[in-house]
Amino acid sequence: MTSPETPGVPADVWWSCVAEPGDAHARALRLALGDEEARQWAGAHTPGPLPEVLTASASWNQWRAAWERWAPRGRPGEAERELEMLDAVGGRLIRPGEPEWPTGVDDLDQPPNLLWLRGHLPRRPTAAVVGARAATQVGARTAHDLGVELSHEGVLVVSGGAFGIDIAAHRGALDEGAPTVVHLAGGLANMYPVAHEDLFEQVVAQGGALVSEVPPTWRPAKWRFLERNRLIAAHCHALVVVEAAMRSGALATARRAMDLGREVGAVPGPVTSPASGGCHELIRRGGTLVRDSRDVLEMLAPVGGATHDMREVTEPLFGTPVDNDRGTDALPPDQRRVWEALPARAGTDLARLSRAAGMAPRQVLTALARLELRGLVRADPRGWARVRSLPSMGA
Amino acid sequence: MTSPETPGVPADVWWSCVAEPGDAHARALRLALGDEEARQWAGAHTPGPLPEVLTASASWNQWRAAWERWAPRGRPGEAERELEMLDAVGGRLIRPGEPEWPTGVDDLDQPPNLLWLRGHLPRRPTAAVVGARAATQVGARTAHDLGVELSHEGVLVVSGGAFGIDIAAHRGALDEGAPTVVHLAGGLANMYPVAHEDLFEQVVAQGGALVSEVPPTWRPAKWRFLERNRLIAAHCHALVVVEAAMRSGALATARRAMDLGREVGAVPGPVTSPASGGCHELIRRGGTLVRDSRDVLEMLAPVGGATHDMREVTEPLFGTPVDNDRGTDALPPDQRRVWEALPARAGTDLARLSRAAGMAPRQVLTALARLELRGLVRADPRGWARVRSLPSMGA
Repeated sequence: MTSPETPGVPADVWWSCVAEPGDAHARALRLALGDEEARQWAGAHTPGPLPEVLTASASWNQWRAAWERWAPRGRPGEAERELEMLDAVGGRLIRPGEPEWPTGVDDLDQPPNLLWLRGHLPRRPTAAVVGARAATQVGARTAHDLGVELSHEGVLVVSGGAFGIDIAAHRGALDEGAPTVVHLAGGLANMYPVAHEDLFEQVVAQGGALVSEVPPTWRPAKWRFLERNRLIAAHCHALVVVEAAMRSGALATARRAMDLGREVGAVPGPVTSPASGGCHELIRRGGTLVRDSRDVLEMLAPVGGATHDMREVTEPLFGTPVDNDRGTDALPPDQRRVWEALPARAGTDLARLSRAAGMAPRQVLTALARLELRGLVRADPRGWARVRSLPSMGA
Repeated sequence: MTSPETPGVPADVWWSCVAEPGDAHARALRLALGDEEARQWAGAHTPGPLPEVLTASASWNQWRAAWERWAPRGRPGEAERELEMLDAVGGRLIRPGEPEWPTGVDDLDQPPNLLWLRGHLPRRPTAAVVGARAATQVGARTAHDLGVELSHEGVLVVSGGAFGIDIAAHRGALDEGAPTVVHLAGGLANMYPVAHEDLFEQVVAQGGALVSEVPPTWRPAKWRFLERNRLIAAHCHALVVVEAAMRSGALATARRAMDLGREVGAVPGPVTSPASGGCHELIRRGGTLVRDSRDVLEMLAPVGGATHDMREVTEPLFGTPVDNDRGTDALPPDQRRVWEALPARAGTDLARLSRAAGMAPRQVLTALARLELRGLVRADPRGWARVRSLPSMGA
């Protein structure tokens, strides 16, 4: 049916043009036979014999189905056309082991054997910022802020270039003058969505990259989004879902990232908002609640993403509650207790005060003396009383 | 100074009228000497000798300070007046071991020795619903809904009766016709806030209770709110913070509940809302994200609070993403893949379709036949094409 001889095309490129990402049979065949011999088998007029290691792991019918699936794309000239198209759009190929290769993707069960690329892939602590296309204004702003602030801290922001959360995160990085990486579901000559083509060009111009696992002319079909999502999950060190409904592709990506051992977080939203329902579920299932870029930097700390600017809070959270009694919260405990024991309006005597505060009279007197120095209480003919109009308290 | 003889007053009541809740010295003295002998010592004109077990754990100066702290309240007649007041407000005392005693409070380091009570304390799975006084409308509605729904499921709702979240939760329970329990910071004759007095009467009328650890006339001074909060934390099986800023009494209560091994959760809010900042921090520190009463029932499951009506979702979350392609998401994978491979407008031939979908021609044909039966594709002179106006898909 087709001829296996396509001498100008490297075997791994030929395979990229024949098998879908994540095709387990293609991977097994290539591992067992090597790319070149595997191509010979897949490109033959009829499927030939296979070593036992392969027929043991899948039935002959399955191998025959794989052969049938590959044959229509294995025709001479197909892969050459993809390479020409790659050249036309100014792209190139990168392979495992090269300096730019995003090593995280090697953690996948079905890792890519090459990537089709425009631009440059920076090697830095990397955060994926993903979410729903139908984002709220608050969600889009949050994603944008994350893009700006993470980029400012030297973190590479990656996402899928989609409407809504994805593109807001990319825009944030671009607004910060930083590189960002768009993982495309279709080929480099099939950028999607079309409305973002100008932004994608800016991504390349600004030192970032457009990355695809499929040949340039392939369409961003729906199943390819799932395969693309697994690349985002694997590429990043930490992944944040900004907004997502209960059933959402972003959640599937988050699940993949969790399975790969990545740090995964989600931004909360109003408890009544369906747009945040998936985020809330994710947090309930072990995702970290993310408020802002500092929380993401904390997630990245193990890979060096948070060398400074860490949130300082640790203890203040559970400290004494604040109140709207101007200033008296800052008082030492004894003085505060006596202050509280003083009636709001009338004066009172020492004995009563001592009982009300549950403190010894001499302790009460000491506290009263200090409160008087602060201008908070005064002794008058009716006893001790609060000074009604509180002075502002010094530090 | 004072006389120790106040024969009509039980020693534990005398102590409740003399020592603040959580007074460690009072507790140690009473444990070592017994309530009656401890009262003799505390009520003597001068502090007498103490057994070594006590002077070993605290210095003599500390014991003397404790004596001085207790003396002003130990005068004859004080405790009698509190008991008269209790009677006047229609209250009574309950003690550890009695059927109504909230056994959870025995988990505290400084458990109460008696409680001053109006109404009745139901023994049921118990949820504390707490939060900020400065609640948003959404927060108050959420607390109210929790009050209604948890009560409907037979869960006892307890809180602190304060403005905002607390009272909204109580109101929810009352609207459901259910008992609810208010833990007061002051005495039963000093209900706070005054604005809620009518509601507090309704709590009693509706089979619930007002509970206080301090004598009826004592004021709801600020430090007593902290002591009261520890009772709420200990009384409940699960605690939910509905809204709380980063520094808030409700968070301190949540921390206490965590320390006591209670299930603790918080309701998320808009990521930008300071009113939810404490809730978000709590979730980050191990609190469960709570969306509604079902999530609280799940927290209560170990104590029998969720015998039915549990949320059904487990797997749908991470399933295939939905999209706005009307109906085609429901297609089996092969048909969906062929549908996706079909051009949006023009027709195409089998060979192209096979390449685009990455499926063998016979698989594509099978899928096309089924899609045609569904009315989704048609064969026309130019090849296979999508039927533009999609019929609605049956189940």
